[in-house]
Amino acid sequence: MPGDLGPNAGLIGRRGGRALMETPALVVEIEVFERNLSTMAGLARQAGRQLRPHAKAHKSAEVARRQVAAGALGPSCVTLKEAEVMAAAGIGGILLTSPPATAAMLNRLGRIHAAAKGLLVVVDHPATVEALERVAAGVGKPLGVLVDCDVGQHRTGVALPGEAVAIARAIAGSASLEWRGIQAYYGHLQGVRPYAERLEKARGGHAQIRTIVQALAAAGLAPAIVSGGGTGTSLIDLAEGPFTEIQPGSYLFMDVQYGKVAVAEAGPPPFAVSLFVDASVVSVGQSTHAVIDAGFKALATDAEGPAFHRGAPEGAGYRFMGDEHGGVVYPAGGNVRLELGARVVCTTPHCDPTVNLYDVMHVVRGEMLEDIWPIEARGH
Amino acid sequence: MPGDLGPNAGLIGRRGGRALMETPALVVEIEVFERNLSTMAGLARQAGRQLRPHAKAHKSAEVARRQVAAGALGPSCVTLKEAEVMAAAGIGGILLTSPPATAAMLNRLGRIHAAAKGLLVVVDHPATVEALERVAAGVGKPLGVLVDCDVGQHRTGVALPGEAVAIARAIAGSASLEWRGIQAYYGHLQGVRPYAERLEKARGGHAQIRTIVQALAAAGLAPAIVSGGGTGTSLIDLAEGPFTEIQPGSYLFMDVQYGKVAVAEAGPPPFAVSLFVDASVVSVGQSTHAVIDAGFKALATDAEGPAFHRGAPEGAGYRFMGDEHGGVVYPAGGNVRLELGARVVCTTPHCDPTVNLYDVMHVVRGEMLEDIWPIEARGH
Repeated sequence: MPGDLGPNAGLIGRRGGRALMETPALVVEIEVFERNLSTMAGLARQAGRQLRPHAKAHKSAEVARRQVAAGALGPSCVTLKEAEVMAAAGIGGILLTSPPATAAMLNRLGRIHAAAKGLLVVVDHPATVEALERVAAGVGKPLGVLVDCDVGQHRTGVALPGEAVAIARAIAGSASLEWRGIQAYYGHLQGVRPYAERLEKARGGHAQIRTIVQALAAAGLAPAIVSGGGTGTSLIDLAEGPFTEIQPGSYLFMDVQYGKVAVAEAGPPPFAVSLFVDASVVSVGQSTHAVIDAGFKALATDAEGPAFHRGAPEGAGYRFMGDEHGGVVYPAGGNVRLELGARVVCTTPHCDPTVNLYDVMHVVRGEMLEDIWPIEARGH
Repeated sequence: MPGDLGPNAGLIGRRGGRALMETPALVVEIEVFERNLSTMAGLARQAGRQLRPHAKAHKSAEVARRQVAAGALGPSCVTLKEAEVMAAAGIGGILLTSPPATAAMLNRLGRIHAAAKGLLVVVDHPATVEALERVAAGVGKPLGVLVDCDVGQHRTGVALPGEAVAIARAIAGSASLEWRGIQAYYGHLQGVRPYAERLEKARGGHAQIRTIVQALAAAGLAPAIVSGGGTGTSLIDLAEGPFTEIQPGSYLFMDVQYGKVAVAEAGPPPFAVSLFVDASVVSVGQSTHAVIDAGFKALATDAEGPAFHRGAPEGAGYRFMGDEHGGVVYPAGGNVRLELGARVVCTTPHCDPTVNLYDVMHVVRGEMLEDIWPIEARGH
């Protein structure tokens, strides 16, 4: 039921609770999660940069609170719902990373601005500056604005330094807006392999961003904030990027896709998989595979399927079998067979959209179900 | 926020409300929806068969109520949450179409059985018959059980008529269970093209089902219920299948995938697209495409992307641009450009998993937002 903690709420605090849960269930292994959280916080601190971790990955006020407690400025949010949930939870330092464009979005943004302890918004169009000016004046509280700059993803953002300067000037000239800086996010580079190619492309992005920063400074509009970067480029961005803050999200959870992306050039990856979908074997009538209760509605992907973390025979592969079912395909020559009702723990294919399928995440320490965190900002 | 009707609730009853809604928004064009609903009801009536339409497509008590009002026996449900929501809404005639397998699932099923006005469950394993026997005895009310039969999808179900007979005998011999019949669902045939091939394969399925029915009848266990079939084979199943009832779901909404599947051999398709995602243009800085606020988290797919129904230039194509954004790619040589904030109406790639991404559906009549229906059974 919406609004509550779901069918497993009665198992909180129960030893062995994880194995008793209804499935499919989204699970966070808290020790790994905490290690990922503090590793990124430590890396940013060492580099003298700030973190504004992206809430699109977790959509949870509790997770954002923990990131802020570890030193983050506040959450980056791509949807108004994410920003609304964070503001309602009393979490400040919110950055809306996608430009609002319709009257409905602007009205909703005004309500969020009125409620939030600190809100920044990106824009990439002069008309939106005018609209935001009216929104902020209506609320009666200055609104911080960043210019969104396109550094190769061709999604949102202005492409030319001259356009950034023109919009920055309009923001700076407004009585109800505060000129704060720029956003330059290269989402298309986060998964580039091999690492050397990602490094080279990120450096190209850094050069583009420096050109924009110089053009703004020359116009007397030096940006206080330069925000961008994600998990895949995080170590590069912290070491040598022109950012004052970065916006990684997936580092908390990791997934099959990021498992193939070495975040650092050498050495063990600094982040490990903490997010899983626990599934149950619901049919064993086939000789070639067992069937689990996790399909497209439990494991979102835009590419490959999930991996098996525990519970499946060595060498087994996952096959999507519709919206609600998946196959654990036995390896050729193997003789291990799964039992009806057995538990299979899957590493999610892509953490962000998978989290968005669930209303809660189950926080486990070993086999203990320690807590359940609502994913309040899922949906729209 | 969960539990309410979302950010557009204030627009209900407002003329022109559709254009004012926050996006992305799931939209049902009610005239087409009602036509699809009554067309399928009429086809079943003419064929002398029953409908138990699948709730996995809509996950909404309001929609199930309307299907029952049009003559359906009740909803088919694949998840326990769907069954739970339908039982709580007072809707009877529920068929759980995937076998329960764990202790947690069986406990939850017991609570649903206690609450429901009529519940049927499928099984494909003798151990589950024993477990269900204890569940039903505990509730103190007989539970109707069907044997799930695999007719080529190799997902759930017993493969051999002898296995079906053995399980049916165990059900019939139980004091707390009622032997009701079989389920035989060939989901893998629903999208087979061309139509002639689907027809041939469905006939192969019918022959398999008749063999199982004969084996049961020979054992004195003639099934009262033979349930199966989906939207893609619905007309074939109604015309010549061995079913007492069919389980179509997508016929209400239709989508890009089903748009490529002719449901009938000739003549206009009997069902039309009633389900859409309304999106907004949020960035117009690129010359080759506009960017809308509907990506992977707004338009679920296991294959192709959405189509444009209204608002995009003739010949434009959709490109996924991440979880929250999509590109409206302008056709070569075209000169129409979208404006910032413009509305684009998308036909969903695959209706079932797309519905599962949303908490509510917006019911529109023309441009009037007439109502908002909760999708209470989304998630897990």
